[in-house]
Amino acid sequence: MARDLVRLSDVAKAAGVSQGTASNVFSRPDLVRPEVRERVHQTARDLGYAGPDPRGRLLRAGKSNAIGVATAEPLSYFFEDPFARVLMQGISEACDARGAGLALVSARNSERLSWNIQSALVDGFVLLCIENGEKLVELTRERQLPFVALALGKPDDTISAIGVDDYAGAQMAARHLAQLGHRRFGILGLELDDAHEGPVGSAEIAAATFSTARDRAYGYFEELALYGIDRETIPIYETRSTAESVRRGLDYILTTGERPTAILAMSDRVAMFALEILAERGLSVPDDISIVGFDGVPEAATVSPPLTTVVQPIAEIGRRAVKTILEHEGGVHRESLPLELLVRNSTAAPRARS
Amino acid sequence: MARDLVRLSDVAKAAGVSQGTASNVFSRPDLVRPEVRERVHQTARDLGYAGPDPRGRLLRAGKSNAIGVATAEPLSYFFEDPFARVLMQGISEACDARGAGLALVSARNSERLSWNIQSALVDGFVLLCIENGEKLVELTRERQLPFVALALGKPDDTISAIGVDDYAGAQMAARHLAQLGHRRFGILGLELDDAHEGPVGSAEIAAATFSTARDRAYGYFEELALYGIDRETIPIYETRSTAESVRRGLDYILTTGERPTAILAMSDRVAMFALEILAERGLSVPDDISIVGFDGVPEAATVSPPLTTVVQPIAEIGRRAVKTILEHEGGVHRESLPLELLVRNSTAAPRARS
Repeated sequence: MARDLVRLSDVAKAAGVSQGTASNVFSRPDLVRPEVRERVHQTARDLGYAGPDPRGRLLRAGKSNAIGVATAEPLSYFFEDPFARVLMQGISEACDARGAGLALVSARNSERLSWNIQSALVDGFVLLCIENGEKLVELTRERQLPFVALALGKPDDTISAIGVDDYAGAQMAARHLAQLGHRRFGILGLELDDAHEGPVGSAEIAAATFSTARDRAYGYFEELALYGIDRETIPIYETRSTAESVRRGLDYILTTGERPTAILAMSDRVAMFALEILAERGLSVPDDISIVGFDGVPEAATVSPPLTTVVQPIAEIGRRAVKTILEHEGGVHRESLPLELLVRNSTAAPRARS
Repeated sequence: MARDLVRLSDVAKAAGVSQGTASNVFSRPDLVRPEVRERVHQTARDLGYAGPDPRGRLLRAGKSNAIGVATAEPLSYFFEDPFARVLMQGISEACDARGAGLALVSARNSERLSWNIQSALVDGFVLLCIENGEKLVELTRERQLPFVALALGKPDDTISAIGVDDYAGAQMAARHLAQLGHRRFGILGLELDDAHEGPVGSAEIAAATFSTARDRAYGYFEELALYGIDRETIPIYETRSTAESVRRGLDYILTTGERPTAILAMSDRVAMFALEILAERGLSVPDDISIVGFDGVPEAATVSPPLTTVVQPIAEIGRRAVKTILEHEGGVHRESLPLELLVRNSTAAPRARS
């Protein structure tokens, strides 16, 4: 290719400037007078010079002024998942404010993910620990760049992390329903382990790989215990956040023992799937059954009925993650952001028994 | 940093393999037996080897198996704009299917954009020619990698492009309204030039920098001429796709001459802002005024009333753009995808004059 034939020194010579000046035109244009800049650019175009080697530039500059966002989910997750979309809005706004670039790093396959992390030209990584957080952390550590995990619940508190108190958030949701008078519950959970689904009990929860689902379950349990509700009597289904999986989960929790009057859903996405399926079955929310979500995604405000949920400051989490990486000063940065219960129309007192 | 101290040759020696094998472990792992792979990885970890130089790897492999998506809009555009989100879903699905990575390249500032394009480790670029398409094309050309512009209307047909026939799409929208009996129109347009807004006429449209707005305007004009409507009598307002700008645009087209019975909006985003503002003003759609959008974003189906629009195969455009770059065989690839008119409830026959 032509880029291998024409070197920066050729451009400098033809433009009648020093190699240092020619280099500055591409790497530190603010140092070069506009007319010289223009002459060097024009010469570069005339000679077919393809620009400086990006990698060489990176090494010279020390910084690439870009953020990598890495996940073990597929790339489409960034644009399809309601939580990820709001998070990415916060991350991209913070990058825009600093003129920083953004690389999305993803792969279901571990070796591919490793390659993608190794080859991204970035100053650090935001890790979306939706699942397989441990693997992501391990692969990213090898790159020896700063990173921030978006989940606080990991057992390893030697890594920087920003997130929320899942345990406390789950308590808020359970307290709201218990105070309305509910005593019979079902739980639609998130994955405890990679690609698993099905009814689970205390043993599976205690052995969970993913802390989010475990901490939310414990938050529900501890709060409901204050109202005399034994965790062993609550049907719990670990879903995979798809409509089909939530459908199987509802089948399980609605038919195991006496029908619950309230559902605790570990994400808005799961709760919104449940709303659709309950409507299909002719069950009225909140008249027949109440439901509380978790996350506070924008869609939760516009579904029917609007969803009561525990709101995370999702975009703010993204903005702070970018700040933490680009203003990295070494050391471990751990930050817990506040949660709020937002009461809408998907919850009400249980109907009196007829 | 440690990465500068430990070299691949050190890892190879310590693991008792040739440097070629050690290199393959990182660049072509499929060629190496799993137990050897594991030994080399373990040795690399023990020595603190940070992995191969991404740029060296790229040069060796010839391909980085990643796509860059470049725009002169801010990064947040990728996650906030309804059209961009669907487009990125298609692009990310196609990348996922090939295990390819994705870099988002953006900057409002031209020099910063140039740097970001030069430094992205990708095999080619998808250019979102929302505006400033010419500048994007020029900057990308210098990189000497394949690229595809997502807009066919550019005067330069020596570049690869995928898109729709904006002229024909606009004709569909105008024909639908004319056939319903409408004869008084207003047009809410997209930008003809960067960062411009205001009432425009034939002269400004003929001098437009951005072809999308120009071609859609001409499509409306030519179709309406068949019904005896003179383009000079139609109030046209060039909006900037914000609620405030659409509000000023509505003020103009509703008060210039006799009130239109139908609005042609050049994007769903503009049409959806208009629906909100018309509702605030107590004007009923479609009873008082009909409106047709352009694009077919998912939100257009759920606004009130659901929007009649010209549907682009947005996700398919994204998928084909990725295919074109990753399966690049040289030469110019130009592809026009079909449009459809989707009639919903925002259009009806004009009311008989009372």
